Amino acid sequence: MQHLYQSVFYSEKVNSLFTDEAIISYMLRFEGELAKAQAKHNVIPVAAAETIEECCKVENINIAQLTADAGLGGNVNILLVKQLTAVVKQKNSEAAKYVHIGATSQDVIDTAMMLQARDAVSIIEEELKQLVKQLVLLVEEHRNTVMIGRSFMQHARPITFGYKVAGWLDALVRSQKAIEELLQQGFALQLGGAVGTLSGMYEKGLKESETMSELLALNNPSKPWHTERDRFVTIAYVLGILAGNLGKIAKDISLLMQTEIAEVFEPSANGKGGSSTMPHKRNPVGCIAILANATRIPGLVATMFSCMIHDHERATGSWHAEWETFSDIIKLTAGAVSKAVELTNGLEVDVQRMLVNLELTNGLIYAENISMALAEKVGKADAHHLIEQCCSEALFKGVHLKDIVIKDKVITKELSKEKIEEQCNSFKSVGLSSNYISQVLKSV
Amino acid sequence: MQHLYQSVFYSEKVNSLFTDEAIISYMLRFEGELAKAQAKHNVIPVAAAETIEECCKVENINIAQLTADAGLGGNVNILLVKQLTAVVKQKNSEAAKYVHIGATSQDVIDTAMMLQARDAVSIIEEELKQLVKQLVLLVEEHRNTVMIGRSFMQHARPITFGYKVAGWLDALVRSQKAIEELLQQGFALQLGGAVGTLSGMYEKGLKESETMSELLALNNPSKPWHTERDRFVTIAYVLGILAGNLGKIAKDISLLMQTEIAEVFEPSANGKGGSSTMPHKRNPVGCIAILANATRIPGLVATMFSCMIHDHERATGSWHAEWETFSDIIKLTAGAVSKAVELTNGLEVDVQRMLVNLELTNGLIYAENISMALAEKVGKADAHHLIEQCCSEALFKGVHLKDIVIKDKVITKELSKEKIEEQCNSFKSVGLSSNYISQVLKSV
Amino acid sequence: MQHLYQSVFYSEKVNSLFTDEAIISYMLRFEGELAKAQAKHNVIPVAAAETIEECCKVENINIAQLTADAGLGGNVNILLVKQLTAVVKQKNSEAAKYVHIGATSQDVIDTAMMLQARDAVSIIEEELKQLVKQLVLLVEEHRNTVMIGRSFMQHARPITFGYKVAGWLDALVRSQKAIEELLQQGFALQLGGAVGTLSGMYEKGLKESETMSELLALNNPSKPWHTERDRFVTIAYVLGILAGNLGKIAKDISLLMQTEIAEVFEPSANGKGGSSTMPHKRNPVGCIAILANATRIPGLVATMFSCMIHDHERATGSWHAEWETFSDIIKLTAGAVSKAVELTNGLEVDVQRMLVNLELTNGLIYAENISMALAEKVGKADAHHLIEQCCSEALFKGVHLKDIVIKDKVITKELSKEKIEEQCNSFKSVGLSSNYISQVLKSV
Amino acid sequence: MQHLYQSVFYSEKVNSLFTDEAIISYMLRFEGELAKAQAKHNVIPVAAAETIEECCKVENINIAQLTADAGLGGNVNILLVKQLTAVVKQKNSEAAKYVHIGATSQDVIDTAMMLQARDAVSIIEEELKQLVKQLVLLVEEHRNTVMIGRSFMQHARPITFGYKVAGWLDALVRSQKAIEELLQQGFALQLGGAVGTLSGMYEKGLKESETMSELLALNNPSKPWHTERDRFVTIAYVLGILAGNLGKIAKDISLLMQTEIAEVFEPSANGKGGSSTMPHKRNPVGCIAILANATRIPGLVATMFSCMIHDHERATGSWHAEWETFSDIIKLTAGAVSKAVELTNGLEVDVQRMLVNLELTNGLIYAENISMALAEKVGKADAHHLIEQCCSEALFKGVHLKDIVIKDKVITKELSKEKIEEQCNSFKSVGLSSNYISQVLKSV
Repeated sequence: MQHLYQSVFYSEKVNSLFTDEAIISYMLRFEGELAKAQAKHNVIPVAAAETIEECCKVENINIAQLTADAGLGGNVNILLVKQLTAVVKQKNSEAAKYVHIGATSQDVIDTAMMLQARDAVSIIEEELKQLVKQLVLLVEEHRNTVMIGRSFMQHARPITFGYKVAGWLDALVRSQKAIEELLQQGFALQLGGAVGTLSGMYEKGLKESETMSELLALNNPSKPWHTERDRFVTIAYVLGILAGNLGKIAKDISLLMQTEIAEVFEPSANGKGGSSTMPHKRNPVGCIAILANATRIPGLVATMFSCMIHDHERATGSWHAEWETFSDIIKLTAGAVSKAVELTNGLEVDVQRMLVNLELTNGLIYAENISMALAEKVGKADAHHLIEQCCSEALFKGVHLKDIVIKDKVITKELSKEKIEEQCNSFKSVGLSSNYISQVLKSV
Repeated sequence: MQHLYQSVFYSEKVNSLFTDEAIISYMLRFEGELAKAQAKHNVIPVAAAETIEECCKVENINIAQLTADAGLGGNVNILLVKQLTAVVKQKNSEAAKYVHIGATSQDVIDTAMMLQARDAVSIIEEELKQLVKQLVLLVEEHRNTVMIGRSFMQHARPITFGYKVAGWLDALVRSQKAIEELLQQGFALQLGGAVGTLSGMYEKGLKESETMSELLALNNPSKPWHTERDRFVTIAYVLGILAGNLGKIAKDISLLMQTEIAEVFEPSANGKGGSSTMPHKRNPVGCIAILANATRIPGLVATMFSCMIHDHERATGSWHAEWETFSDIIKLTAGAVSKAVELTNGLEVDVQRMLVNLELTNGLIYAENISMALAEKVGKADAHHLIEQCCSEALFKGVHLKDIVIKDKVITKELSKEKIEEQCNSFKSVGLSSNYISQVLKSV
Repeated sequence: MQHLYQSVFYSEKVNSLFTDEAIISYMLRFEGELAKAQAKHNVIPVAAAETIEECCKVENINIAQLTADAGLGGNVNILLVKQLTAVVKQKNSEAAKYVHIGATSQDVIDTAMMLQARDAVSIIEEELKQLVKQLVLLVEEHRNTVMIGRSFMQHARPITFGYKVAGWLDALVRSQKAIEELLQQGFALQLGGAVGTLSGMYEKGLKESETMSELLALNNPSKPWHTERDRFVTIAYVLGILAGNLGKIAKDISLLMQTEIAEVFEPSANGKGGSSTMPHKRNPVGCIAILANATRIPGLVATMFSCMIHDHERATGSWHAEWETFSDIIKLTAGAVSKAVELTNGLEVDVQRMLVNLELTNGLIYAENISMALAEKVGKADAHHLIEQCCSEALFKGVHLKDIVIKDKVITKELSKEKIEEQCNSFKSVGLSSNYISQVLKSV
Repeated sequence: MQHLYQSVFYSEKVNSLFTDEAIISYMLRFEGELAKAQAKHNVIPVAAAETIEECCKVENINIAQLTADAGLGGNVNILLVKQLTAVVKQKNSEAAKYVHIGATSQDVIDTAMMLQARDAVSIIEEELKQLVKQLVLLVEEHRNTVMIGRSFMQHARPITFGYKVAGWLDALVRSQKAIEELLQQGFALQLGGAVGTLSGMYEKGLKESETMSELLALNNPSKPWHTERDRFVTIAYVLGILAGNLGKIAKDISLLMQTEIAEVFEPSANGKGGSSTMPHKRNPVGCIAILANATRIPGLVATMFSCMIHDHERATGSWHAEWETFSDIIKLTAGAVSKAVELTNGLEVDVQRMLVNLELTNGLIYAENISMALAEKVGKADAHHLIEQCCSEALFKGVHLKDIVIKDKVITKELSKEKIEEQCNSFKSVGLSSNYISQVLKSV
């Protein structure tokens, strides 16, 4: 990741898991625990394992050299094992014989990616928890804040702001469940050796795998999965859904921040959202970051799906294409969640402006209410037709729909003035908003 | 879908769920059950509901006219309701007042898509069951069929063909579980009216929704989800993963069918896989179809993710972009499963040829075995270095590695001739293949 | 394509080029011209060629059977040649010997796709010409129609509506040029036989290719390009860019149609854009279709790029994945252009509303003007700071910025009242809008 | 970009254009030339411009602080201008008034990206030139090297290796032309100010733009193009095509390097392509990197297309999503070209092995030759049928096709033994391979 955009799109906490040092550390963790597991099952001497584990520190590794030479082997692990072996040898030449026994580069890299992703997803889970908490508060606060609902960006019928937020929340609760499930089942050890048969480990391989997965707190799979990539794609999908859900929130807020609508605003902060040339602007910078990230993730997720078509026992390019793609998905999603937490913590809601905007159509948004009340008497088609005419007249004359309807002789034969006015009350037009809110809050 | 490619890429059974008639039928089913649910809760008269339901038949609809005029409204439902109302009116003008009460086009279309997808996924589940069954047989039959494992398409170390198939199977079993879960939880009723508040249905909306979801055997969500699209994306993801898993199988088989490898062949059928100009060819036509479909799906899934960024209470284009994209994902996946069933039913496996190919490297594939045996004595680095030299010599002289190793004085000081020969036995080099097979079969 | 969505997303004219009949016709055209070219160079008898050409009519083909059986061979051409040969044989058994000589299925399918795409692109070019014409009129009519320019959907500074449309136009003119160039150079004959060497045609192959490309008015390439797919991707790219450009237009118009903004409207038509439940709505149905199509195309274009990684002399799936993907890109783009022509023919522009909206910020949009005038005296940083304070005050008090600035003693020391008022004139704040318009119109 | 994968996937030279320092330098170059251009047209004092230009050095900028704070404003330019102004002020407080006059962040960022992309594309052009040179040599050297052509990865008919490489070359020559055209027309100045009207620059804006584009050697567009993104997408497309073309080469070579085929090998280098566990392997590491990059680019290009749907005068997220996506496309393509240069410089071609492989089907690859010779006598259908039978027999008996055909009484009535043997000569079966090679070489 380019450092320069760190604070624009990303979560610092999660990005710190993806530095060169961090990646190497996860790989070394694999090598250390491998030695430990092998010692436990008497595959290698305990003393050797202890030396190896001790040496598995990123400080011992010359990353610059790894970076420069990795191209020769096609991955960094080959050279990492070389360097690690040299470090171990300096301490204890006997122990050096037992480094990376039976494992292959893909075991190290896949498992390291799992550990790294798990740590990142755990941070994302924490942040999401905070986000959900904030949205719950927003829903509760605005359970009865009436605003216009918009379809195709046009005024449709009233809803409450609480109802709108409950929609965001409902989707995020599903994302929360998916993440929880992911943390329980989605992260697995990869340990298979050259072709996935652990042939380098003799019969003790199964036990070693079991011990390794315990040590790393990863699932122990039925078989090595180096060639079946659905686990990585599933992680990408869960994050992609989360990013999409956040994108929807950011889209709504950025639309509501429009100068002409002005119903909701990102919390202001010193220097935030200012424009270099227009001192008055209040740009939706948080929304922008979320939307940018949510725009980038679908293409990256597509690449993860494409990479599933692995060939034989180790893929020729499809595996390698996953590395940075997968990292990018995680980092961009983490960034989106971080930004969403900031965005909704102190979100400004202009309740008065919502009421003002509700009146912009001169009552046309109540047309359906009146139409339905009328439909009970004359049927839907006729009611629709009658009210459509009234709407045209109201639009043409620039007056409130109510005033036209009340003067219509056909309609008033069926509906009283009181009944008509009742239909034009926004607070009574929000349907089941509150009921749905309750149901969503219950599911949190 | 272009009819012309029907048998090339698709499942006839599933495609038949996506004809114009089928789509309209699903939409009519919604309208019929809506009336029924509303009658149950005394929102509309029972007699009216009965008439409406009776009229909800695709034969009553002029699809050509729908097709021609739908562009005006932006979706087919507006005109469908008009036509349906006219049909009902002819039977009973009173009943015509009660058509499509409180619902909106998106309710009908989203729910119809759910029903359609559920039916398709059920068919896919059946086919997948059959596929899994066939793969189980293949695994059992070839538990001990030794072949070379290939990494980066190069000979690596021996595996068994059963082990390879167990990898395919393992992933498909996960897909099976995902589909099962999907069929239980993934399909939900959408019923929300103009802005998702069911404002047109007064207080009885919640009960109507409950009844509707029972009638349609769909989940009853906490709230209408017209603006939160993760459900559709989840279905797309489950199918995308399945297609990717099948793509991996097709990739392997097509590679194994290469003239130079010739280890596995698609079952032959009269006229199948023939070339128009080369009478001798046996083209992997089944693999090709699966690979083509698996290549197309990632881009389509990306579009589904992109569409999550819905605006406000009904999206301006993002919703519409889902329709055909979602259908295509379903149809292509169904096609891939169908082709995979054909492909693996009678798959020809040339066990002899596998043995012949194992010997192509003159024993180089056993280098790791010898190296590891040697490593126990002299350490990994030295062993690797010694064997590397032997490999070079074997390659240069064109003789079997064993013959070089046996003459190496340094090595033979550590390893006996018997020990060396033992390392060059392919049947003893498949590691835990059989153990993993057992674990996978247990999970089926 | 699903028929049902024909009028919602597509161009009828272009879609008619993609029916089963049309596809078969293009393939038959190839077979007919091939015979003709071969007769010209004495490869086959003239009489045979005449019979073959005569038989190359779609009426002679049993499409249902093709559709049912094509799966066996993996493409429709194999069976098409069989059927065609049978038809020819009935007329003249001698002639039947000369059908499809030396060509392979990919020659027929690739070339047919080129012909089909060329016809479609020609129609698109015509429509685009009309669209450009309409936009030129809009630009000219609204050269001086002042409106607010919006960045991040916030009021920024004034522009003219003509300037906004000139931006749309400028991009479309580049698309026009790209399409023109495409029609001249982008469509090429594919004729290579089994492996692209025309080995079936002896030495006369080069001449036959030349004649074929003349007969089909396609470019004659340096060599058969069956394995180099950049030509198809280039066509996809040109159309994808066009669709993206149209998406931008649709995005702008749909945003301007928002109830709160209401500056621009799609032309109204009987029944168009109506809502099934809200009689007053005026939905951006044209924009929606364009946005939906523009949302779908990027994923499809990605697939075309993915398919470039062809293997050897005929690709195992990558070729097949192109067929429907490529067609979809063409059909969706054609639909988008059609909709854009409708959309901008009679676009309603509310010039008064634009002026009203300009005043919504109480002059804050002129802050930069004043700031810059002031900067000439006190430097940019100080000016920015001073005006920022005035903006805050204006916002807080809810009064016009001008009224605050005029009372500021520091500022008025540098700027006269007249100078300040001059800065708050929207008509004088549109910068080079008109100059840019002139430059764009010159380039049309 | 993660440093760690630098040598695995990337070009060091191109990546160095994308460091934080480099990005800031390009942005500063914009600010410096802007001042210069404004001084030339007497918009700002010459002395001020000189001071500004002098200060526009990356050493003057505190990048760590930019990185930390950029999130507040949503882009790095806002803070960069602040820092730059402070630096200028220290030198000359008068000059500080004239920094970044009339420009907006998007002007700086878009133009900087253009400059950066142009420099990168120039390096790519150089590398591509070298690659083309190497391929020309390969084509010439192997003009007559006969090998089997493969369709669907099955033996089809003979080609020459020179012909195969000529296909790669032909596509790359088109990429070369596209890049050349791009370097001439594809890179343009963006200078429009807040809403693209250059309103901050009064009448002199047009001249300033002209001068700016001369100073930066960029095209001067008809109007600012901040909202029309086709230029960036076009660059992405040209690079995407190039990457796809390289992917095809890497796919072919990696398939030819398969142990069973072994016709072509990446040049060997010390430590290159070795396996950590299998001393004998020769992994296609160059191909892997190219394939990985070519696999990742389509999804990224799709994002660029998606981003075209900009809103109004500055996009809310679509612009920001381009930044890293566009950089990634450039860096990955540059890496692919670099790897391809390495890969084909010293490519090992095993001409003998190609001849051996040609015989693997026992003459079945000549079936079409014989079939066609026979077709001249008995018609295509009958010939095909007869030869199909011979092929089956040859396959079944495991003998050479020729030996079966020569004994077939029906066939030998039409074809002499000599004629039959002539058909089974691979050197005479490569059709127009050499002619096409000549045509391609002429086009280089």
